Amino acid sequence: MKRSVGHVPGLAVVLVGDRRDSESYVRYKVKGCEEVGIKSLLAKLPGNCSEDEVMDSVSRFNEDPSVHGILVQLPLPEFMDEERILSTISLEKDVDGFHPLNVGNLALRSRNPLFVPCAAKACIELLLQSGIELMGKHVAVIGRSKVVGLPTSLLLQRHHATVSVIHAFTTNPEAITRESDIVISAAGVANLVRGSWLKQGAVVIDVGTNPIEDPTSDYGYRLTGDVCFEEAVNVASAITPVPGGVGPVTIAMLLGNTLDSAKRVYGQSD
Amino acid sequence: MKRSVGHVPGLAVVLVGDRRDSESYVRYKVKGCEEVGIKSLLAKLPGNCSEDEVMDSVSRFNEDPSVHGILVQLPLPEFMDEERILSTISLEKDVDGFHPLNVGNLALRSRNPLFVPCAAKACIELLLQSGIELMGKHVAVIGRSKVVGLPTSLLLQRHHATVSVIHAFTTNPEAITRESDIVISAAGVANLVRGSWLKQGAVVIDVGTNPIEDPTSDYGYRLTGDVCFEEAVNVASAITPVPGGVGPVTIAMLLGNTLDSAKRVYGQSD
Repeated sequence: MKRSVGHVPGLAVVLVGDRRDSESYVRYKVKGCEEVGIKSLLAKLPGNCSEDEVMDSVSRFNEDPSVHGILVQLPLPEFMDEERILSTISLEKDVDGFHPLNVGNLALRSRNPLFVPCAAKACIELLLQSGIELMGKHVAVIGRSKVVGLPTSLLLQRHHATVSVIHAFTTNPEAITRESDIVISAAGVANLVRGSWLKQGAVVIDVGTNPIEDPTSDYGYRLTGDVCFEEAVNVASAITPVPGGVGPVTIAMLLGNTLDSAKRVYGQSD
Repeated sequence: MKRSVGHVPGLAVVLVGDRRDSESYVRYKVKGCEEVGIKSLLAKLPGNCSEDEVMDSVSRFNEDPSVHGILVQLPLPEFMDEERILSTISLEKDVDGFHPLNVGNLALRSRNPLFVPCAAKACIELLLQSGIELMGKHVAVIGRSKVVGLPTSLLLQRHHATVSVIHAFTTNPEAITRESDIVISAAGVANLVRGSWLKQGAVVIDVGTNPIEDPTSDYGYRLTGDVCFEEAVNVASAITPVPGGVGPVTIAMLLGNTLDSAKRVYGQSD
């Protein structure tokens, strides 16, 4: 893009506090930017800063014409009003796709959101790239967060899948997953989905990244998914591992959203 | 409200063309307004008017301070851009709740929409008023229109139900409905849901209003639901009839949305 129009896309990341998992996610995002030639800007704020300081950071990036995407790494410290802060992000730079107008336009099939949340896009991309048909398939989505579960269920419906959304109040989740052709889990519960939860030949996308203690690791912990991989691999026809499955594709989608945003600004959109 | 704050809530309806079903729905809405003391305004435009004329009508109601709710009766004539026209309605007067920002705020459980679509609210109201617990219940929603299916599935999730959305591409709809505690049908297909589709004791909400020819009726047709009532009534523990079930409650919700809107304007909101 730099060569063709003389501009470089820019992604700004706001990181508050020093959660190790958030820091490592941000590291991956910044590294991804470097690899593809997207400029990255990082605003790192202490965990005890005020809500207004976070909003000021976002506002500066809103006004910076070299920034085409802004993301606030979640979760924010408990005392902060996440919705209020996220609302500050300009709709045109909302590369995470969490703005309610983007969510509404994702839900309404006759409209198109400016951005689709990256993890949801990653799940669909993995399925489509693997040649898995979505139309008419029964998909169980486990979890209903605005980051993964909700947008994934909405995006699947745009592809004409039949979606069941399972969550903490679901009385018999395994009965629903066992009837499903595809299971996408983003519950944040390690080893929630057992082999017995799956229909023979089901396709499994594991979006869970649950840190569990591991003294043999350099960091003292390792990431594990929502799915009991060792059991599921014997039943599923295809399954994504954790780490290494959805994560890297999610970062690719974030870079793609940032590029799309820059293209819109410079009148290069497809 | 007139007595307490000296103002009357106002609802404006835009009706384009002369579809008999639309005309009768509008008649019910206007009658509902009269019964509860809401002022109603009707803009009736010929089916061959231009899109701009419809938008002008909406704009006039947007600017009229005596109007607190605006609805454009759907469907519009085929040649019109429905999304474009609906987008003209001021967010604060969108009593049908179809604006993407209202839909996004309905989908995001941490936010609150200004208005929830009336038929979706009516379904939930009927269930709650009948003492039917929603939390943890498996609900099959048949149909995914922005008018009923989509907002109903989102509203059910706010009440912590487990929702499966069935639509025209679903390969085996009856397998899902048979596992469901509650079935809400808004497919627009007469007698789609048979008795054999239901679990013993299921609760059935029939939102379908399908005109079928009936020479014995004054109008030459009568309305029938999506559910084969004669069969379903033997299996279900509770069922709504068509006509007379969800319809009148939907109108009550519309009047309620209009009243809420007026209260917001006059600083009387709860």
